[in-house]
Amino acid sequence: MNLKEKLLLGPGPSMVDPRVIEAMQQGMFGYLDPDFMNVLDDLADKIKTVYGTSNVTMAIPGTGSAGMEAGLSSLLEPGEKVIMCVYGFFCERMVDMAERIGASVIPIRADWGKPFPAELLEKEISKHEKVKMVTAIHGETSTGIKQDLKQLSQITKNHEALFMVDAVTTLGGTNIEVDKTGIDYIYSASQKCIGAPPGLSPVAISDAALDSIRARKTKPSSWYLDLSLLADYWGEKKIYHHTTPVSMIFALHKAYELLLSEGLENRFRRHEANAGALIAGLAKLQIEVIPPDGSRLNQITPVWIPEGINDDAVRSKLAADYSIEIGKGLGDFSGKVWRIGLMGESSKREYVLKLLSALEDIFNYYGFEIASETATRAANEYYESSDLKSSATDSQF
Amino acid sequence: MNLKEKLLLGPGPSMVDPRVIEAMQQGMFGYLDPDFMNVLDDLADKIKTVYGTSNVTMAIPGTGSAGMEAGLSSLLEPGEKVIMCVYGFFCERMVDMAERIGASVIPIRADWGKPFPAELLEKEISKHEKVKMVTAIHGETSTGIKQDLKQLSQITKNHEALFMVDAVTTLGGTNIEVDKTGIDYIYSASQKCIGAPPGLSPVAISDAALDSIRARKTKPSSWYLDLSLLADYWGEKKIYHHTTPVSMIFALHKAYELLLSEGLENRFRRHEANAGALIAGLAKLQIEVIPPDGSRLNQITPVWIPEGINDDAVRSKLAADYSIEIGKGLGDFSGKVWRIGLMGESSKREYVLKLLSALEDIFNYYGFEIASETATRAANEYYESSDLKSSATDSQF
Repeated sequence: MNLKEKLLLGPGPSMVDPRVIEAMQQGMFGYLDPDFMNVLDDLADKIKTVYGTSNVTMAIPGTGSAGMEAGLSSLLEPGEKVIMCVYGFFCERMVDMAERIGASVIPIRADWGKPFPAELLEKEISKHEKVKMVTAIHGETSTGIKQDLKQLSQITKNHEALFMVDAVTTLGGTNIEVDKTGIDYIYSASQKCIGAPPGLSPVAISDAALDSIRARKTKPSSWYLDLSLLADYWGEKKIYHHTTPVSMIFALHKAYELLLSEGLENRFRRHEANAGALIAGLAKLQIEVIPPDGSRLNQITPVWIPEGINDDAVRSKLAADYSIEIGKGLGDFSGKVWRIGLMGESSKREYVLKLLSALEDIFNYYGFEIASETATRAANEYYESSDLKSSATDSQF
Repeated sequence: MNLKEKLLLGPGPSMVDPRVIEAMQQGMFGYLDPDFMNVLDDLADKIKTVYGTSNVTMAIPGTGSAGMEAGLSSLLEPGEKVIMCVYGFFCERMVDMAERIGASVIPIRADWGKPFPAELLEKEISKHEKVKMVTAIHGETSTGIKQDLKQLSQITKNHEALFMVDAVTTLGGTNIEVDKTGIDYIYSASQKCIGAPPGLSPVAISDAALDSIRARKTKPSSWYLDLSLLADYWGEKKIYHHTTPVSMIFALHKAYELLLSEGLENRFRRHEANAGALIAGLAKLQIEVIPPDGSRLNQITPVWIPEGINDDAVRSKLAADYSIEIGKGLGDFSGKVWRIGLMGESSKREYVLKLLSALEDIFNYYGFEIASETATRAANEYYESSDLKSSATDSQF
């Protein structure tokens, strides 16, 4: 296999620190090996720290979508009401999943590319009796929107429902305070801001949510993603469920270790600095960022593709001539939007400048008259002027 | 993390060749990267070769149990009839899963530790109209039984039902001819005879089975394990579904490459030789093998724990003093049975002798009077006398 490595600046997977890759050299262990159980326990603790929770935590043996499905299929019985705040591609995926398991789904659809207005939830939830759960996405990767969760959580609690949150894109790059916010089930993915390869989904589940699974009248439709069975393996009982993906666990454990060594605050500031510099540079290329200020994720920056520029041609040229991968638009945004991800190891000053320089070249190639280094100079000026300067470089802590 | 490596001679994960671990160093790639797509295509071809099929193949992003659930939840709609041949712990897991998705489950329960009698299927299936599917397990890891599939498949086809098979333990250690046998859906796991870390499930699905998913009246309960969505990603369409576990794919690809270099026939003979030698040695320790000759798997050897021997004490001593892990009994066999796995990289003459020597020591420690090297000598004699001799050593091909 002769593979050409690329700089990954899309929606994930992101680049992975060599020490995380190295951790997979640890070799193989049985799924009930006492030494390996210590690794699982320690990983569960680290997951708690980063989520800011004392809830039960674990890593589900699948990608972020497995974490999504584990929550919906474990926490909802057929016919139970779930109100879903919908403002992007992955919100729609949640709706699809919830419908498949036979829940009574009440979607509230709002504009893509703007934060979801909490008053819509208040209005809708007041119309229904016995809503079991409300769902939201902290950072919609399809639109780059950072959703405020506090108000949604408060409304949900006022109506005695469970609150389920997708943190696939935000975890490790934006502060999440699960306990303070009041989140009953939250899931993420290993390959974005956490900095491990894809394949595991770190989750946290409240006692109220676990109790509601144990009180179900019917078993969850999924055995593989049954959160109560998974919790019995990760918890004190250590009851065999599946054969744990050992190598991936070692990688995820190392990635959490590196994340905590860098420090959460430092990591958040690094993501903020690099996104800011990227946007300063993009402005010089007349590339407009979609999310409004204040609701913008630092992890992923979706932009409108300028008129006269062909989506596929530019992304192909970036990949072929510059070995850089950026993300395309999904769903309603297909062909209209690029998504530039600066997540985890991919959030580095060096990479921001490399991408801006490549875009300058390509835009000139397509007849836009961009003076040399216009965009990179703007990014560098941003770094130098910003009080985030010291956080702007890489994660070689 | 200071972990004590063990020799893994249980039900899996098995040992992994260093070249497979090394393959995970390849770094990260996007889930639609053209170079990475070539790896997926090549892996799909290799999966076809080892299954002996021209059906659609892929690696599902989860463990063997995810492969099990993918088949049941994709191929069965609520209320559809499935006849399940049940003769061990993992057959019961299939029943649980099928019940969860609301299928009309007709289990035929037969004795654990014996092959399933095909006439029971003939008798049962004749009683029902419109049976959608019949399920069987090729090698029940809980009992060590190798199930003949040809007759079951023939009966199933005669009644125009789909035939679904679990090959978690057999794939890579026992010949499976999917097309000749007539198997509509088969799944396995990466961490047993294939020789990769746990976390992926290689599967093959017939056109008839795929058509039946596309003709469903309701969507499968699972989005994550929906075989038609997974096939659209692995097939020519390359439609984004989940973020592929990149590192695990590299490991699985390398494991299949090594398997095919060794050659399927050589690999089967290696498994046969080492299981035979193990059993010759165990006989000298008065340890009785459960499955009858002719229905015995070479991959895993379940044995009755001799009277006067404590299950936990011996397994703990093996782990603590000899760094060897063997498997315990599951379900009805809990506390009564050990399961010794010689699968993939764990199937080596050196390891057989190491285990037998450790068991000699431990049995002496517990007051059994075993003359020194009784068991290892018997194993060595078996190797020397057997026409499998040349296959008996390791896989350093």
